[in-house]
Amino acid sequence: MSKSLEAHKKWKGKIESKVRAPLENKEDLSLAYTPGVGEVCLEIAKNPELSFELTRRWNTVAVITDGTAVLGLGDIGPEAGMPVMEGKCAIFKRFGGVDAFPIGLKTKDTEEIIRTIEIISPSLGGINLEDISAPRCFEIERRVQEKLNLPVFHDDQHGTAIVSAAALLNALELANKEIDKVKIVVNGAGAAGHAIVMLLRDLGATNIVCLDSKGIINKKNATTPSKKEIADVTNPLGLEGDLKLAMNKADVFIGVSVANCVSKDMVRSMNDKAIVFACANPIAEISMEDAKEAGAFIVGSGSSKYPNQINNSLVFPGLFRGALDAKATRVTKEMMLAAVYTIKGSITPDREHLLPYTYDEKVHQDVAKAVRKAWGEK
Amino acid sequence: MSKSLEAHKKWKGKIESKVRAPLENKEDLSLAYTPGVGEVCLEIAKNPELSFELTRRWNTVAVITDGTAVLGLGDIGPEAGMPVMEGKCAIFKRFGGVDAFPIGLKTKDTEEIIRTIEIISPSLGGINLEDISAPRCFEIERRVQEKLNLPVFHDDQHGTAIVSAAALLNALELANKEIDKVKIVVNGAGAAGHAIVMLLRDLGATNIVCLDSKGIINKKNATTPSKKEIADVTNPLGLEGDLKLAMNKADVFIGVSVANCVSKDMVRSMNDKAIVFACANPIAEISMEDAKEAGAFIVGSGSSKYPNQINNSLVFPGLFRGALDAKATRVTKEMMLAAVYTIKGSITPDREHLLPYTYDEKVHQDVAKAVRKAWGEK
Repeated sequence: MSKSLEAHKKWKGKIESKVRAPLENKEDLSLAYTPGVGEVCLEIAKNPELSFELTRRWNTVAVITDGTAVLGLGDIGPEAGMPVMEGKCAIFKRFGGVDAFPIGLKTKDTEEIIRTIEIISPSLGGINLEDISAPRCFEIERRVQEKLNLPVFHDDQHGTAIVSAAALLNALELANKEIDKVKIVVNGAGAAGHAIVMLLRDLGATNIVCLDSKGIINKKNATTPSKKEIADVTNPLGLEGDLKLAMNKADVFIGVSVANCVSKDMVRSMNDKAIVFACANPIAEISMEDAKEAGAFIVGSGSSKYPNQINNSLVFPGLFRGALDAKATRVTKEMMLAAVYTIKGSITPDREHLLPYTYDEKVHQDVAKAVRKAWGEK
Repeated sequence: MSKSLEAHKKWKGKIESKVRAPLENKEDLSLAYTPGVGEVCLEIAKNPELSFELTRRWNTVAVITDGTAVLGLGDIGPEAGMPVMEGKCAIFKRFGGVDAFPIGLKTKDTEEIIRTIEIISPSLGGINLEDISAPRCFEIERRVQEKLNLPVFHDDQHGTAIVSAAALLNALELANKEIDKVKIVVNGAGAAGHAIVMLLRDLGATNIVCLDSKGIINKKNATTPSKKEIADVTNPLGLEGDLKLAMNKADVFIGVSVANCVSKDMVRSMNDKAIVFACANPIAEISMEDAKEAGAFIVGSGSSKYPNQINNSLVFPGLFRGALDAKATRVTKEMMLAAVYTIKGSITPDREHLLPYTYDEKVHQDVAKAVRKAWGEK
């Protein structure tokens, strides 16, 4: 049995609940529960917004999945997704002070997912969507956000994009390159790929080439709404072809795709001081060793076994802490950019340390502060 | 500002989350989260039942309301119901060690409520329905239980019935009367009234007269399914009329109805050594003082200000602790009866102490043990 499986058997849950109100005698019970609680209910009935002050709602985020795109494991179901959701909830509390709880949904129907989240929203302060497969995730996030005055954030899209962008900005600095002058290949056009493209555009990238499993996306072959959005803002030269063609003379490769799709030759065909982020999970697009051998200047991956792990645990605790503290009713582009710049700036980078560590508490505090400020300035 | 409102402003939530897994360094994170967690997910994907061993599910109960029948306050909405739900969750943890979290539903539609609970069930070990108005609560509980292999319990029905029955058995003992020989009036045929009637029947009562707001329920006037069920097992003499008629020569009055509907004269018309449980909230059917003055032998109420508070906080923590520990897939009649007898037996009663105190931890442990055993013997 692996160490992790053994640990999970011992923990029997990575979070539990903790009581904040004393319940030691009749007086305590009459304050926290009946009859005293009746008056508190009536105050909220008069003004439901008071539920953010008189209950745990102000600090409560649901981590919601349908289990269709868990890690790199695919559609394993809501029960099987739960260890990841619980892990996130533990990280939420440990690094953001956020009370998060996991909800696994036994449906894959877009309409039902949207409606279910809307129905359970009165007890929530924010919604972290998680591991919901593309393209459903785009519509679910957009429509849930339209319906609710609560911050809604699909971590696989925006969390991944924010941490990748922060790492990239530091890598470009070390390579003495500028984001508006480099050619960036984004391999993968699912939840993460789409969000990375959009965020890099907001950061000034002008030459992005994005690929799905069929090859380079361009205005002619893009069919789904999300791929059309990608085609609209990428591939200025109208390239057609495969990953090999795309990577030729590229400065940056960001992979959020599948195992072993990048060869050493492809890396060799990139420009000098090539930056390779091979984030496929659990097996990367190209191994750290092969990428280095092929001459990559900086390599990052999704794995904690190597330097430069690109992991969204750096993002969500501080982002939601800031959004909840600001009483933000959505997550804006400005809040995401604030998170990017804060994470980028929280380390003096070298080629093996593009990002701070998740267990560095200060990063999360700084992200929270920047995000809160960015909402205020919206 | 009342003391309770002040306390709620200070607490800002009566429960929070607590992390059980260490998250202090890279190694910790790789065990509790990626990449280690992947293997745990795959184990559950092979056998979803393992979610009860490898996640918090085994100990997790959702306290779910639509806010339509909160305390005696009526339909105040899901946000306003939250202070009660949180209070229950705190009591669940403090006295049952159960990790409960509140869910307020923004719908009153029976079908939507049933479907929503089914959809969110993969993260749950049990479901405590709460403050859902009758008659919808009957169908919701029944159909949710049919769909899920998890214990489902509508506390306003069965919690109230169990604690009322335990108090009644002790009161009858003190009055030297036997349950199969007394006339029992149950005023109120909503969630609580229906469940009280059914449970007292299971305990051997033969002469129950139950009333709704229109008067005594009998086979001729019962129209809804739940009232027909009541008519089928009550009113053996086929009485027709009002509460005054019903209470004449009754031994027991149990009110789960409305304020001030019982007069002193009605109590005077009861048999010798009358037992009066006036549980309407926040104002009782008759005050403790008036009932005593009118000659009641034993008086109980829903209020913590008087002796003999009849409160279901004595039931749900131990009942769910036992059900979760037994891995019960439903709450059986045997489990409820075990809870009744355990609560009854956990005190040597006198006329002002029919029930133990909620903050007596041993009662909850004993209820849990008895309930676990009752499931094993099903």
